[in-house]
Amino acid sequence: MAVYTDVTDGELEAFLSAYDLGALLSFKGIAEGVENSNFLLHTEAGYFILTLYEKRVAAGDLPFFLGLMEHLADRGVRCPLPVRARDGEALRRIAGRPAAIISFLDGMWLRRPQPQHCASLGRALGEMHQAAADFPLRRANALSVAAWRPLFALSSERSDEVEPGLGEFVARELEFLERSWPDALPDGVIHADLFPDNVFFLKNRLSGLIDFYFACNDLLAYDLAVCLNAWCFEPDRSFNVTKGRALFQGYQSVRPLTAAERDALPVLARGAAMRFLLTRLYDWLTVPEGALVTPKDPAEYARKLRFHQKVGDAADYGLGLR
Amino acid sequence: MAVYTDVTDGELEAFLSAYDLGALLSFKGIAEGVENSNFLLHTEAGYFILTLYEKRVAAGDLPFFLGLMEHLADRGVRCPLPVRARDGEALRRIAGRPAAIISFLDGMWLRRPQPQHCASLGRALGEMHQAAADFPLRRANALSVAAWRPLFALSSERSDEVEPGLGEFVARELEFLERSWPDALPDGVIHADLFPDNVFFLKNRLSGLIDFYFACNDLLAYDLAVCLNAWCFEPDRSFNVTKGRALFQGYQSVRPLTAAERDALPVLARGAAMRFLLTRLYDWLTVPEGALVTPKDPAEYARKLRFHQKVGDAADYGLGLR
Repeated sequence: MAVYTDVTDGELEAFLSAYDLGALLSFKGIAEGVENSNFLLHTEAGYFILTLYEKRVAAGDLPFFLGLMEHLADRGVRCPLPVRARDGEALRRIAGRPAAIISFLDGMWLRRPQPQHCASLGRALGEMHQAAADFPLRRANALSVAAWRPLFALSSERSDEVEPGLGEFVARELEFLERSWPDALPDGVIHADLFPDNVFFLKNRLSGLIDFYFACNDLLAYDLAVCLNAWCFEPDRSFNVTKGRALFQGYQSVRPLTAAERDALPVLARGAAMRFLLTRLYDWLTVPEGALVTPKDPAEYARKLRFHQKVGDAADYGLGLR
Repeated sequence: MAVYTDVTDGELEAFLSAYDLGALLSFKGIAEGVENSNFLLHTEAGYFILTLYEKRVAAGDLPFFLGLMEHLADRGVRCPLPVRARDGEALRRIAGRPAAIISFLDGMWLRRPQPQHCASLGRALGEMHQAAADFPLRRANALSVAAWRPLFALSSERSDEVEPGLGEFVARELEFLERSWPDALPDGVIHADLFPDNVFFLKNRLSGLIDFYFACNDLLAYDLAVCLNAWCFEPDRSFNVTKGRALFQGYQSVRPLTAAERDALPVLARGAAMRFLLTRLYDWLTVPEGALVTPKDPAEYARKLRFHQKVGDAADYGLGLR
């Protein structure tokens, strides 16, 4: 939950005067998103989201994120569409922050996704990858394999506070990942954070993808590996192969994986687990005492990583030959 | 900002099936309100607010609050209207909490109200007092003069941490208030918490009063004293007599004050300042280290109290004879 920056009525009126959205009718902070401040905006033109980009988002990346959403929406991907002001610009400033208005997407995120939802997710991810293929801007993945060792260095001394032996476990796994990370797989624009709370459904139909603020250029199959971790494990931490199968079937109905991608999946899944393990570990160890926001449990991702270490090949994820 | 209780999509679907509101389209936590969890709810029937009542609100008081909103809305007061389910009940349960759906009110709260807004506020308060005159339920004010000494006892030992000498200052003032508190003034249902963030405006027109969860039976003029403190001081802490005059003119255009009410205003204003000083003092001293929510400054209300101690009579607030 997050509203970090307050916006006064005067600032908002001035900001909106650059747009053709009619009079302001309502404005409420939304308790979603952990990186930015989000507001529900109601004007005579309808309902919108106003996002203020807080300091964890680099201002230089915003043209990539906003351009990508517009590019995808233009190609039929259901995602928020940035609203341009009368001067053609979607990226503006309010209350000392970069800010943009995006369209309001109906839909609910699923607390307990089922296999059919994993299939829809896979299809939508494949469609997103295809629609982004001709997106002209580039952004490196700041949280890929090269970043993991320096990220771990920020938490390594205290990592055993989370779980005895975790530091040694991560150090060994990092060596493996750095040695084994694939580099010749198909790449393109990936979402990189497609957790259930970033995917909306309406009556079991996928109605939109949101939160493109980790999107970047990287291996396409790595995006699938992120989803595998985020969607296909049960609350009891066991892997649900039916969900895995559905995810891959959905994805491959749009874009079949190459043999090399299939072979690399266990390594990619270990890397995706490492990436979220490390950011959660850092957040866990740096959260202020007594803070209202409970950081997410890094141990969940250590367990997923151990599962992937034991996987023989992609068939164990439910990925059959096509 | 607050969403204390998460609601799953399954719980929400089941909850909504009791209403005639059509299919669920969207559901987002709102970062407003410090006592309850509030969600923006979009269904085929429109936009609504779903409120889950957290433990600081006594479940036994909810029929009073919801009944009052319905009573006022029926009489033309612009305030949220509780939505009844098909069985006629507006008060239900979800996620283990009492809950209600209320109508969504357009409007913005003013960060910097001007005298014209104080006049509108006064008028709306007078209209609310009149519209509530025949409301049949009763609820005692749990935060009136009798409650202040026990409330202070929870913070008295540490009150000098906020400001040297504050404990002694409050103790002396409590003696004065207990001795001087009026009891024969006109009473009725009061809002008791009509701060700027509970009053919506659209293009300088008052569009609604919200958050009736402190409403109770008490002296009508005490409600005005709460507003005087909350609306008529400047950011530099000085009293703005133009705003005071506007507030009273607005109120008296609907319901003229009696001579006894006018005479009692300085004492009522001291009491209203004491009530918010004490709850802020308690919150200030009990907030967890490192919490994301900054508690409101109790010293602001100590300063207002000192101002009222020096007031000669109600004319100093801008309250002229009519």
